[in-house]
Amino acid sequence: MKIIDLINKKKRSAELTKEEIEFFIDGFVKGQIPDYQASAFLMSIWFNGMNNKETSLLTNAMVSSGDTMDLSFIKGKTVDKHSTGGVGDKLSLTVSPIIASLGISLAKMSGRGLGHTGGTIDKLEAIEGLNTELTKEQFNKTIQETGMVIAGQTANLVPADKKLYALRDVTGTVDSIPLIASSIMSKKIASGANSIVLDVKVGSGAFMKTIDEARELASVMVSIGESLGRKTIAVLSNMDQPIGRYVGNRLEVLEAYELLSGEYEEDLYELTVEISKQLLISTGDFTEDQAVKAIEESLASGKALQTFKRFLEAQGGKVDSIFNEKHKFKIAVKSPRDGYISKIDSEEVGMASLMLGAGRENKDSVINHATGVEIHKKIGNKVSAGDTLFTLYTDTENINEISDRLLNATVINEERVEKTNSILEVVK
Amino acid sequence: MKIIDLINKKKRSAELTKEEIEFFIDGFVKGQIPDYQASAFLMSIWFNGMNNKETSLLTNAMVSSGDTMDLSFIKGKTVDKHSTGGVGDKLSLTVSPIIASLGISLAKMSGRGLGHTGGTIDKLEAIEGLNTELTKEQFNKTIQETGMVIAGQTANLVPADKKLYALRDVTGTVDSIPLIASSIMSKKIASGANSIVLDVKVGSGAFMKTIDEARELASVMVSIGESLGRKTIAVLSNMDQPIGRYVGNRLEVLEAYELLSGEYEEDLYELTVEISKQLLISTGDFTEDQAVKAIEESLASGKALQTFKRFLEAQGGKVDSIFNEKHKFKIAVKSPRDGYISKIDSEEVGMASLMLGAGRENKDSVINHATGVEIHKKIGNKVSAGDTLFTLYTDTENINEISDRLLNATVINEERVEKTNSILEVVK
Repeated sequence: MKIIDLINKKKRSAELTKEEIEFFIDGFVKGQIPDYQASAFLMSIWFNGMNNKETSLLTNAMVSSGDTMDLSFIKGKTVDKHSTGGVGDKLSLTVSPIIASLGISLAKMSGRGLGHTGGTIDKLEAIEGLNTELTKEQFNKTIQETGMVIAGQTANLVPADKKLYALRDVTGTVDSIPLIASSIMSKKIASGANSIVLDVKVGSGAFMKTIDEARELASVMVSIGESLGRKTIAVLSNMDQPIGRYVGNRLEVLEAYELLSGEYEEDLYELTVEISKQLLISTGDFTEDQAVKAIEESLASGKALQTFKRFLEAQGGKVDSIFNEKHKFKIAVKSPRDGYISKIDSEEVGMASLMLGAGRENKDSVINHATGVEIHKKIGNKVSAGDTLFTLYTDTENINEISDRLLNATVINEERVEKTNSILEVVK
Repeated sequence: MKIIDLINKKKRSAELTKEEIEFFIDGFVKGQIPDYQASAFLMSIWFNGMNNKETSLLTNAMVSSGDTMDLSFIKGKTVDKHSTGGVGDKLSLTVSPIIASLGISLAKMSGRGLGHTGGTIDKLEAIEGLNTELTKEQFNKTIQETGMVIAGQTANLVPADKKLYALRDVTGTVDSIPLIASSIMSKKIASGANSIVLDVKVGSGAFMKTIDEARELASVMVSIGESLGRKTIAVLSNMDQPIGRYVGNRLEVLEAYELLSGEYEEDLYELTVEISKQLLISTGDFTEDQAVKAIEESLASGKALQTFKRFLEAQGGKVDSIFNEKHKFKIAVKSPRDGYISKIDSEEVGMASLMLGAGRENKDSVINHATGVEIHKKIGNKVSAGDTLFTLYTDTENINEISDRLLNATVINEERVEKTNSILEVVK
């Protein structure tokens, strides 16, 4: 078999076989297929796509390139969630304790973020003492004792994805649905959970700009999951504004804590309940009504909050440090006029947060865990000139550029605006 | 400027600017743009093409990557010809002496061949003593004295093409009209002639399988030439059978000599007259009628033959050695039945010639200048069972596989078949 023949086949839209796809992944990971041939092949996929069968085969070949997690030692069902990435997305911190408090285990291997805020790992590291570099034994102990764990990757999961992504990133082949779907799903499959819920963000602040693209990505991922034996459900959710009240590392942990304590922004709550519900349904042990009832009880009884605290402590975190304000200044950004909020560009809020130090501009940037943005007004809210729209948690008083950026990101209508739906669609 | 932005632009079918195309060629040649990004860019071009303006800009940028020939020391007009490659194509040897005998100079830098037979350089080296590795002084002296010269490349012409072609060859991006057109035309432009005639082969034995593809390639090349200030004409010619009577190095030189002496296969003669005619017309100094008359006179008077001999001698060749038969065996391949020849697959005849040693299987192969195939019957000819279809000039008697190959390549119809036209179309 020769890679040049595979390139020519995909160039002419022919369907690739299992053997051909395995040949590509194996040869690429071993360095037998050079980057310049791999990138030509990836560009052919960018243009001609892959059907669901090819995409599942690609995902499976990627999974086989490295280790896979064996979660069979866990009693009961295991689930996993993934978000395609949103601004203010702290769902892993709100959903996992709810699910774990209901006897379902969620073992999450997470990465550090590159961009507007940190990844879940970075957010957790805002908590004093919390350790995310767990040994295999610590990882297993934490999930067995608390029903959840969030740690950096210990095993060598899907090396093919790391190598492919690095190449895609510099060759214009990131924005390809089969390549995105196989990248996400290979990591989920390798992580070993019985079922998977995907949160696919839609809107100007998300990778998928339109509901049609998002629906396509979701349905490809669901098809991959099902064909590889994992119950998979995708939720399409709205990214026309940042999620919840805070963007920034400690601030997002605080917001998760508050939600579990009963105090929350409506959109974050709706999304938390929906993702939790789909996770419970995915186990096959809950109807929709049972799931919603169980979630509400877990929150109302404080069981979810207790699970969250137990999990933080199990990983060495001092829970009280969530409330330690370490930023130097708190500066209000005020509305220039009266009206109704009709849009808050998430990407811009993310950029503002990054400029405050909460995100990484490049791999070597050091994250400031204390800083971030508080969003006081959301879509549909009435505002008067002089009302505080945002509060900046910052270590510098030079915030003019950031404040301008946030005001430019906020559209204020004269006419009344309806609040938008957080949940757009469920694909299963 | 960043190459990733250029990849994304071409991916989305946007038109590239002069600066962007120059940035790509310059960066690629200098090694600042890595192969894996260049190949993704080339694959985007494979899919989305380039318009004529972009293709001319690409060609010009490629020309600027190296040296260009200055032929201004030559008195009178200079012309150049190029063939996209045919089996039995000895047109450079028949056309150049005719043109040179009429006061028009043709300075040809040629390569060695990879494939069925050698390149023009290899063919000439079948002549004892003939030197194709000329110094600049020898090159200039030969063309000034004889009106023609055929030599290996002395100057560093179009290094961008060498590097691009090597990458295209292994990344499935060879068969792209703008990339083929810019590759051919960059070398022609850099070679410095005032006008250019392109012989674009069409048919199963050629790179362009259909007249539509060939017409497109021709018109892009004509557009490039004209936009870069060179009169350019393309002839579409038929490759449904090998050209002329012989395939093989010495045999093809012999055939050229014979044509100039007045003895020829009709298709080779038609093609020789057509390419010569278009070359004369391209100078602006000949009408079509004047051109044909001049060619006929040059041939009839023996002036073309004399020019050929003078040229061979000027490069150190012993003309008589053309007639030295150095092959060990001559073996006839006979027709299995009666009928009319309706097709002779050129590629297969080329392969047979290669198997006899006349071509190069890889870069390191040593060419046998003595061997080759003589084609006795051409399309339209009537044959009877037992008639000789081919004669093999060979150093081995193990020719069963070769003889089968030739018989399989030859289609014999029961019904009468018309001879096909050598010239299909002229694009200018």
